[in-house]
Amino acid sequence: MSEAHGVRLVVAYDGTDFAGWQEQPEQRTVQGVLARAVATMAGAEVRVRGASRTDAGVHALGQVAAFDSPRFIDPHGWQRGLNSALPDDVSVKAAAACAPGYEPRFDAVDKLYRYLVQVGQSRDPLMRARAWYLHPGLYAEKRRGAHTAEEALDLFTMREAALRLVGTHDFAAFRGAGDDRENTTRTLSEVELVPRFGGDATLLAIEVRGTAFMKNMVRILAGTLVEVGRGRTTPEEIEALLAPGVGRTEAGPTAPAHGLTLVEIALGRGGADAS
Amino acid sequence: MSEAHGVRLVVAYDGTDFAGWQEQPEQRTVQGVLARAVATMAGAEVRVRGASRTDAGVHALGQVAAFDSPRFIDPHGWQRGLNSALPDDVSVKAAAACAPGYEPRFDAVDKLYRYLVQVGQSRDPLMRARAWYLHPGLYAEKRRGAHTAEEALDLFTMREAALRLVGTHDFAAFRGAGDDRENTTRTLSEVELVPRFGGDATLLAIEVRGTAFMKNMVRILAGTLVEVGRGRTTPEEIEALLAPGVGRTEAGPTAPAHGLTLVEIALGRGGADAS
Repeated sequence: MSEAHGVRLVVAYDGTDFAGWQEQPEQRTVQGVLARAVATMAGAEVRVRGASRTDAGVHALGQVAAFDSPRFIDPHGWQRGLNSALPDDVSVKAAAACAPGYEPRFDAVDKLYRYLVQVGQSRDPLMRARAWYLHPGLYAEKRRGAHTAEEALDLFTMREAALRLVGTHDFAAFRGAGDDRENTTRTLSEVELVPRFGGDATLLAIEVRGTAFMKNMVRILAGTLVEVGRGRTTPEEIEALLAPGVGRTEAGPTAPAHGLTLVEIALGRGGADAS
Repeated sequence: MSEAHGVRLVVAYDGTDFAGWQEQPEQRTVQGVLARAVATMAGAEVRVRGASRTDAGVHALGQVAAFDSPRFIDPHGWQRGLNSALPDDVSVKAAAACAPGYEPRFDAVDKLYRYLVQVGQSRDPLMRARAWYLHPGLYAEKRRGAHTAEEALDLFTMREAALRLVGTHDFAAFRGAGDDRENTTRTLSEVELVPRFGGDATLLAIEVRGTAFMKNMVRILAGTLVEVGRGRTTPEEIEALLAPGVGRTEAGPTAPAHGLTLVEIALGRGGADAS
């Protein structure tokens, strides 16, 4: 029996031209593109296992993936080789040895997502694939002249709502259609608003950290918080959505996929027991 | 004789899919795309005059353009209307009335360009259209393990070189082939290095402010400063390039277009004498 060599990767991608992470027939997916590049180097078909199934259009700076290769290549060699073989919209930020069969999905103890909202008099063309653009006058007539996210959205009240989302709650109202997991209780350790993200006054980042998420959960949280910022709903109403028995239709709209980035994943053991 | 109404715009664009600013037959240019959108609203063919002829691939956050419309529309109407009509990679950040025939090119008193360099173990796919990516080991073997621009490039020596570029000098060594203007003396009021640009440790911004620039001048300045950062040339050698009689071949390589952004243009009168 030939030996298998476990490899763990940290992967970044621009989700724009991908039908999401998960491999699907006839679709360009991150998992599929990675698997092909790995197969060329490994000299065999290889299954690439991901920590998080990001949706079509969602970006990543810190996705974690792992695979077993019949051929031994050192981690630095994997990183350099894959980065030469991969298309421009995916890259390997780090590579390490791990135990064969290591499953990043079961080892992810904490995930950080960032949702970017842009609010100003015009959309920044250079951010169009990364931020959800809102014209300040679209929903809040009195703030139509605003030039920054801070002028257009009520960040104070958004922060109040964000605080009520932190902790362990029933997030059934904050999951997308098609998610039918029975247990809808999740724990968020952080829901932060970062105005002037990256020094740009039109950008607001909504950063959400937690142990596990349901389908579209961060996008619904972001959509709901923006509704609070526009004065269309209140922190008290958000808190009421966390009560048992509330359905999905009660929360705010699902913010579009292209504003979301999977920033980092903290691992438990990291598959570090490589033999 | 029908009256003409002067309009001045601040325009942003992602240069990736444009053959530059200036209209050319059979090519997608920013000037051409803008002129078509303006014509639809004005009900007539209209020539759009720009302040700066950015090259193919160069981005803008603050290009200035002006045109004369036979039809009167208020500035806010122009901004909203053009932003609905324009493709996703161009937008109008501001609009104002100005004198008919106003020429932004002759009124630009100061321009700020930003050149973005990314240095790290892998290219960030989300910045691939905006920053020049350099692998730290590519030219400086001893710094191949660097994870940030500060670790990979010698910023202290780059700053020394940058300081020698500030002021009024003969920049003949820093212009691209095909630029045959006789007067090659230019004044730079600022050459700043901004590490951790936008909070990202892999990004270094080189910001250059001046009254006027020659072809490819900022890209050659950026390419030359990066050579200094890699230890392949010295601040003293840069200073020598500013001596009279030095030709283009003496300076560093032209950094690629996609790292360059025209950030803002300061205007003199701004065509503000609109009647």
